[in-house]
Amino acid sequence: MKQVTAKWVDGLQFVATGSDGHAIVLDGEGRGFSPSEILLAALAGCTGIDVIGILRKQRQKVSSLEIIVKGEQLPDPPWTYQKVEVEYVVKGEDIKESAVARAIELSETKYCSVGATISDKAKIVSSFRIEEARP
Amino acid sequence: MKQVTAKWVDGLQFVATGSDGHAIVLDGEGRGFSPSEILLAALAGCTGIDVIGILRKQRQKVSSLEIIVKGEQLPDPPWTYQKVEVEYVVKGEDIKESAVARAIELSETKYCSVGATISDKAKIVSSFRIEEARP
Repeated sequence: MKQVTAKWVDGLQFVATGSDGHAIVLDGEGRGFSPSEILLAALAGCTGIDVIGILRKQRQKVSSLEIIVKGEQLPDPPWTYQKVEVEYVVKGEDIKESAVARAIELSETKYCSVGATISDKAKIVSSFRIEEARP
Repeated sequence: MKQVTAKWVDGLQFVATGSDGHAIVLDGEGRGFSPSEILLAALAGCTGIDVIGILRKQRQKVSSLEIIVKGEQLPDPPWTYQKVEVEYVVKGEDIKESAVARAIELSETKYCSVGATISDKAKIVSSFRIEEARP
């Protein structure tokens, strides 16, 4: 069981605190992360942790990993996410394309709790790019 | 279209940055919010913004609002959320129970993008408590 508490500050600003004391400012008017953007950050972090963990176990020499997540919401309330694009940019030395493809597939189909929770409503489409980084 | 970029720092740590420059540390080993907890924070902030906005429009004298979100995940990978309990604690002067119930209902059924996106997989159950706070 995971637990988060959000406490109203003023205006439309809240501070949300997780079970191990980490806190984040959320706001409906720009004075903090917007909750709908934080949903995309949750997906980015979730799959990023999976992918970097898998690539390092496979001894891929990753020097940089960036995940760009773009979300399309329905135009009317409640602005449900209908499509989320996830782009992975992996830099490193002799990174194997097959290893990256497999890591992303494992995250999508097997490990990422955030993706698994939202994917009924939001279609998740992934792509990746590998950039060589000579030492 | 909303966009977030997550950049790997080291270990299982990422920094995610939203479109207006807000950033958050996410981590798979405790050095930041866990992505699956941030999903609960997104829901807390989303519905909190709705509820405080509606209650203030209805001229309810709210002095404090706290939202406690508890999430139950499936025991096996991908640890999909199956149930989320949302408890609202409203403090203020002569707060109307019907106004709080209506504000929560509107958030759940009409306005909250995060709830609408996750609710196919995660059953969302709400409750509230009002505490009198004399001026």
